[in-house]
Amino acid sequence: MKRKPRLFTPGPTPVPPEVLLDMAAPMTHHRQAAFEAIFSEVSEKLKTVFQTSSPAVILSGSGTAALEASMINTLSAGDKAISVNGGKFGERWGQIGAAFGVEMNVIDIEWGTAVDPAQIEEALKAEPSAKAVFTTLHETSTTVLTDIKAIAEVTAKTSAILVVDAVSALAADELRMDEWGVDLVVSGSQKALMLPPGLAFAAIGPKAEAVMKTSTLPKYYLDLTKAIKSLGKKTTPYTPSVSIIIAMNTALDALVDEGMETVWARHAKLAEATRAGVIGMGMELFSQRPSNAATAVKLPDGVDGGTLHKKLRDEFKATCAGGQEHLKGKIERIGHMGYYDQFDVITVLSAFELALKEMGAAVKVGEGVAAAQRCFAEE
Amino acid sequence: MKRKPRLFTPGPTPVPPEVLLDMAAPMTHHRQAAFEAIFSEVSEKLKTVFQTSSPAVILSGSGTAALEASMINTLSAGDKAISVNGGKFGERWGQIGAAFGVEMNVIDIEWGTAVDPAQIEEALKAEPSAKAVFTTLHETSTTVLTDIKAIAEVTAKTSAILVVDAVSALAADELRMDEWGVDLVVSGSQKALMLPPGLAFAAIGPKAEAVMKTSTLPKYYLDLTKAIKSLGKKTTPYTPSVSIIIAMNTALDALVDEGMETVWARHAKLAEATRAGVIGMGMELFSQRPSNAATAVKLPDGVDGGTLHKKLRDEFKATCAGGQEHLKGKIERIGHMGYYDQFDVITVLSAFELALKEMGAAVKVGEGVAAAQRCFAEE
Repeated sequence: MKRKPRLFTPGPTPVPPEVLLDMAAPMTHHRQAAFEAIFSEVSEKLKTVFQTSSPAVILSGSGTAALEASMINTLSAGDKAISVNGGKFGERWGQIGAAFGVEMNVIDIEWGTAVDPAQIEEALKAEPSAKAVFTTLHETSTTVLTDIKAIAEVTAKTSAILVVDAVSALAADELRMDEWGVDLVVSGSQKALMLPPGLAFAAIGPKAEAVMKTSTLPKYYLDLTKAIKSLGKKTTPYTPSVSIIIAMNTALDALVDEGMETVWARHAKLAEATRAGVIGMGMELFSQRPSNAATAVKLPDGVDGGTLHKKLRDEFKATCAGGQEHLKGKIERIGHMGYYDQFDVITVLSAFELALKEMGAAVKVGEGVAAAQRCFAEE
Repeated sequence: MKRKPRLFTPGPTPVPPEVLLDMAAPMTHHRQAAFEAIFSEVSEKLKTVFQTSSPAVILSGSGTAALEASMINTLSAGDKAISVNGGKFGERWGQIGAAFGVEMNVIDIEWGTAVDPAQIEEALKAEPSAKAVFTTLHETSTTVLTDIKAIAEVTAKTSAILVVDAVSALAADELRMDEWGVDLVVSGSQKALMLPPGLAFAAIGPKAEAVMKTSTLPKYYLDLTKAIKSLGKKTTPYTPSVSIIIAMNTALDALVDEGMETVWARHAKLAEATRAGVIGMGMELFSQRPSNAATAVKLPDGVDGGTLHKKLRDEFKATCAGGQEHLKGKIERIGHMGYYDQFDVITVLSAFELALKEMGAAVKVGEGVAAAQRCFAEE
C-alpha cells in the first residue's frame, strides 16, 4: 500500500507548511530596516519561549555551536566545572570541556536514568571552586528529562552558574529560566521550535553575564558578548542565516499565540498518550524519567531495533530514530515535539504495532492505539 | 512609478527561484540515505567550484566561522603569521589572530589598493618562522582583487601555508586552488554560489592538512579534522543546515553545468560592462585592482553616499551597499556576482544615473547605460 512519508525523529522535526514557504522568500539584505524589524521581533519572542527577560541571542550554526559558546564565554583554561553524562549529549559537555582545557568533574549516571539533584549538590560541595554546572534538559539519546528546577535550587546557593542544554526540549518540556533561576540556556532551531536546523540560541541571565566578564578562553565567531551588543543594533555580528530567521518569525508567532503553558500541556498530553500506547501494545519504556519531547521504546529480546527502524522508515514511511552508541538496536525513539498533534501519535503507534507484528513480535495489535485514544478521550 | 525590489548587494545575492523552492522542501532527517546522497553529491561539486581534488567541507555558520576554522585548525598559540589589511575583511584576519594569541604580522595597505606579492615575499623573509599567510581574494569592502596566483608562487617556496578568504568571490573571480598551489580556501554560501547565508566552506589542500596535525589551538565545533573524517561517512559531525544543503545541490548544478571557465568569463564581462558604465556616466572607480564580483563607485565631492544609497534603495528599489568604516558616504558598491546577468547591469546603471541626476550630480544620463551596451555588443 502506498504510504505518505512522515518524520517522527526527535529532531529535525516537521516544519509547518507556512514556515517552509517563508524559507523560500526572496533573498533580502540583513543590514536594512525591513530585516532588522524581523530580527528585533524574533529576539523578543525568543525571550517568551525561554521564559526570560534576559537577552537571547541567535547564532548561525548547529546546537553544538551554542553548547560550545556557553562554555568558552564563561570559563577560562584550568577552570573547574561539573557536568552530567547520562547520554550522548551530556557526554558532549565533557568532550567540549576537554577540548578547551576545562577541568570537568563528570557525574556518570546510567543511560536511561536521570541525575539526582543531590548528586549535583555533593559534587559542588566536593569542588566548591567549580564555576559552572552543565546539564541537559532533555537527553535526546535516552529521552530522559532532568529535574532542572531542583538543580537550579542547588546552584542558586553557590557561585557556580547553571548552564542547560535545552536543544531538544525548549518549548516541549517546561522550562522557566528566570523563575527557576537558570543562568544560561542554549537551544537549536530544529526541534520543538518547528524550524529547519541551522540556528542556535543562547539566553544569558545576569549571573552568567557577570561570569562572562572573567572568561579568558579564546573566542571570536562564538563571542556572546559581541552577540549581546549587536542585539541592541537589531543585528548579529556576522551575516546570519537570513532565511531561517524570517521563517522563525512565523514559527514563534504560532508558539506565542498558543501560549507557552498550552504548548507545554499539549506536549505533556502527546507524551502521555504515546507512553500509554507503547505500554498498551505490550512494549516497555526505556527512560526512567521520560520527557515530553520524545519516547524511547525498549525492544523485547528477539526484536532487532535496526530491522524495526528500517521497516518503519522504508515500508511504513514513518521515520523514527534508533538507539545510539551501546543502545543501538535496543531502543527505537519516537519524537513528538514541535509541529505535532494527537493524530500524529495515533499514526506512529499504528505503524509501530503493524511493523512489530510483521516482525513476529509479541505485540497486542490495536491495543496501543486504543490506549492512546482513551488517553485523548479523557482530556 | 512603482518599481520592483532588486538586490544588488555584494552578498547576500539574489537566489534563483528554483533554489528558493528547494529551501521550502519538507524537512528530512540528515542521517539517512536520501540526504547522504545529496550531501555526497554536493561535496563533490564543491570541489569543482574550488578547483581542487582535496576535501571541501561544509560548516553550518557564517563565512567568519570558516575564517576562524582555517586559523584555529592550523596554528597554535604564539605562532607567527602574516596577514594583509586593506579593508574590513583583511582586517578580520588580524582580529581573529589577536583573539587566539597568534602573533600576526599585518601588512597594512591603503584601502582600495592591492597588496604587492613582493610585500608578502619580504614579510616572509623578515619572519621565516611564519606558519601561514592569510589573504583575501576579493576584499568586499573595497572591491579590490588580490593577485592570489602570484602570492601562491611566493608561499610555495616556503614552509608557510597560504590561506585565502574567498567568501565573496569564489565562482566570480578565477581561483584555481590546485593549479595555483593555494593550501586552504574558505568561502560562504550567500555570494556567487547563489544561496542564502548560513553555510561556510573550507577546502583543505595537503600542505594545510599536514600543518593541521601540529595545531594545538582549542577547537570543537569548528574542528576541520572531524569534518574531513565525517565527509567519508557522507555527513557532518553535527546536525547541518539541511535546507541550504538541499538547495545547494541545485545551485551547484547550475554552476557546474555552465562550467567554471564560462562562469568566470560571464562575471568578467558583467564587471567590465559595469565599470564601463560607471566611467561612461562620468563617475570614477574606487578600486585600484577591481574584482569581477563587485564594483565600488567613488562619489564626487558634493554627492553624499548615504543619500544616494537610501534613494537607490527606497525610491528606485535597487539595494546596493554603501561604504564601510572611513569609506562611509564616499563610495557605493554594486554587486554583480552569482545569479546575475547583463540586464541586471543595465538596470543598476540606469538606477544609478537617474538617482544621481535627481541629486543634482554632474552625471551624463544615458551614457553609462550606453557604454555598458556597447561593451556587451562587442561580445
